[in-house]
Amino acid sequence: MKRHMAQTSLSGNKRTQTERGVRIAGMGRALAGEKITFGNQTRYRLSQGQSLLDLAEKAANEALSAAGMNIKDMDLIVCAMATPLQAIPCNGALIHERMAKGLDIPAMDINTTCTSFISAVDILSCLVDCGRYSRVLILSGDTASAALNPQQKESYELFSDGAAACVLTKAEKGEASAVLYGCQKTWSEGAHDTEIRGGCGLMPSFCMDEANREDYYFDMKGPRILKLCARRLPDFLNQCLFEADIHREEIRKVVPHQASRALDIIMPRLGFPKGSYIDRVSEYGNMVSASVPFALCEAVNTGVICRGDTILLMGTAAGLTVNFLLMRY
Amino acid sequence: MKRHMAQTSLSGNKRTQTERGVRIAGMGRALAGEKITFGNQTRYRLSQGQSLLDLAEKAANEALSAAGMNIKDMDLIVCAMATPLQAIPCNGALIHERMAKGLDIPAMDINTTCTSFISAVDILSCLVDCGRYSRVLILSGDTASAALNPQQKESYELFSDGAAACVLTKAEKGEASAVLYGCQKTWSEGAHDTEIRGGCGLMPSFCMDEANREDYYFDMKGPRILKLCARRLPDFLNQCLFEADIHREEIRKVVPHQASRALDIIMPRLGFPKGSYIDRVSEYGNMVSASVPFALCEAVNTGVICRGDTILLMGTAAGLTVNFLLMRY
Repeated sequence: MKRHMAQTSLSGNKRTQTERGVRIAGMGRALAGEKITFGNQTRYRLSQGQSLLDLAEKAANEALSAAGMNIKDMDLIVCAMATPLQAIPCNGALIHERMAKGLDIPAMDINTTCTSFISAVDILSCLVDCGRYSRVLILSGDTASAALNPQQKESYELFSDGAAACVLTKAEKGEASAVLYGCQKTWSEGAHDTEIRGGCGLMPSFCMDEANREDYYFDMKGPRILKLCARRLPDFLNQCLFEADIHREEIRKVVPHQASRALDIIMPRLGFPKGSYIDRVSEYGNMVSASVPFALCEAVNTGVICRGDTILLMGTAAGLTVNFLLMRY
Repeated sequence: MKRHMAQTSLSGNKRTQTERGVRIAGMGRALAGEKITFGNQTRYRLSQGQSLLDLAEKAANEALSAAGMNIKDMDLIVCAMATPLQAIPCNGALIHERMAKGLDIPAMDINTTCTSFISAVDILSCLVDCGRYSRVLILSGDTASAALNPQQKESYELFSDGAAACVLTKAEKGEASAVLYGCQKTWSEGAHDTEIRGGCGLMPSFCMDEANREDYYFDMKGPRILKLCARRLPDFLNQCLFEADIHREEIRKVVPHQASRALDIIMPRLGFPKGSYIDRVSEYGNMVSASVPFALCEAVNTGVICRGDTILLMGTAAGLTVNFLLMRY
């Protein structure tokens, strides 16, 4: 009966948030078309003529199909992506054009960079639970390759282009599915540890020259991020587990952001032994906002995560933002 | 007693959404430092060394001060802006660095371009009402001047750089303040009527050359937008008024997005006579996401809008997105 342990509290405390009766009705995912390898690490990059819109549309159609629904059934489209496709309009409007042209479904972006999907599910679970929306299509995805710097080996060999999507609906009567607790924190000491400085408002494309060309590339300060995570994550996690009134062993599976190959060092230090969390960094790399929903979708499709399982989505993001979302799938 | 008419329904219908007991506890605004004129139209542009972060910080500090609060009292920072400051991280993290460095307040972006503020208040009113957050700092603002095309007179002479902010909190017992109803729709036939095509994922800065330089400028197809608005707005508005169970005459003041000088043509056609809505286009131009909160802040500061007044925030945005939010201030 291990599967249902999470439904009773071991500690006898009280969870600080009310359950939101929502379910992920369907998920989908898509990988970019070009497969490359760096040693034993496999990565995916956009093939000629392909764009993030293609990947996002494919993932969303798979999610809708898995939910037995049509785009017309959705009453909100949310792009939970880290990077803008254009400075204007928002990504939501551009994916709307691909999938919902002629319909009047509202479209918007919610962005906390790499953990945008977690933030979106946290927020939308409240909006669906309170009745503001009923059936929401959430799309995540990024194409880091558009801005990767071949000179920065660490990031150049880490990222993949991909997308993932889910349909979030109200849980029907008798269904156990729910979001149990969510928590996000941002420590802006890390605001410039992961960034693309150029291309947008603060440093428009017009300002690019040979001297500052590097500012328009993705720039990651890996060791600084790891250090900040090591300082902030343990306390954050303990606070979340306490407020969520849950013990690590009650969690069926942790779906962490596939931040880097350091996942196998960090997760055990946080009290999650190998096997208790999903690590697909070697197979897919870091897919930015798509990492968490992509890994979740794969785990659902392969039976690693089943209905009723208590799962934890968690991750770190440029910001530095950390996100924690506990749900019964 | 005209002021309180809105609290009783004229129609006897039932509003389709539940009231969310929230209040705008304080507001602030900031204009860019350089004042210019085009005929009888006044516009504001960033002065040397000034950035959107300066304006947003000033507006936010004014909002916090008006609310009698400190940044430490906030449990969420939301940037509801149209354009990214950097492709990574999100604007929320960058404003967090300015205002909340060393604190762990979560930061995020919510984006529906020009109506981002309306979407953010709609969403956050639900999150505050259900207890997910308690005191939220919402910042809007854009510096269109970073990408305005001097060759496109219509847009070049329309936009201003500015910011505005509000503190959103739970309404205390006995307070009338509430969000009564919100509705957004997106019609992506208009996705490319207002856009900046270059600089981000679909067309990175590296792709800019002399032939496509115009793609990196703000591009507005005014007549196409007006035509699409004329086709979509009347039905949208009637549906909202019906679902919100409110008559136009029960609304104390409409705060529309200051989209263009056509405001004076469009609003009366929508059944809102001159005087029933705020029009400050001649004084400030279109401040993108800052337009609605800036106009609202000014109206509150000058006593045009008072506590208990039923007000309507509405606007059109690149997307084409339209937004409608009815609240008791």
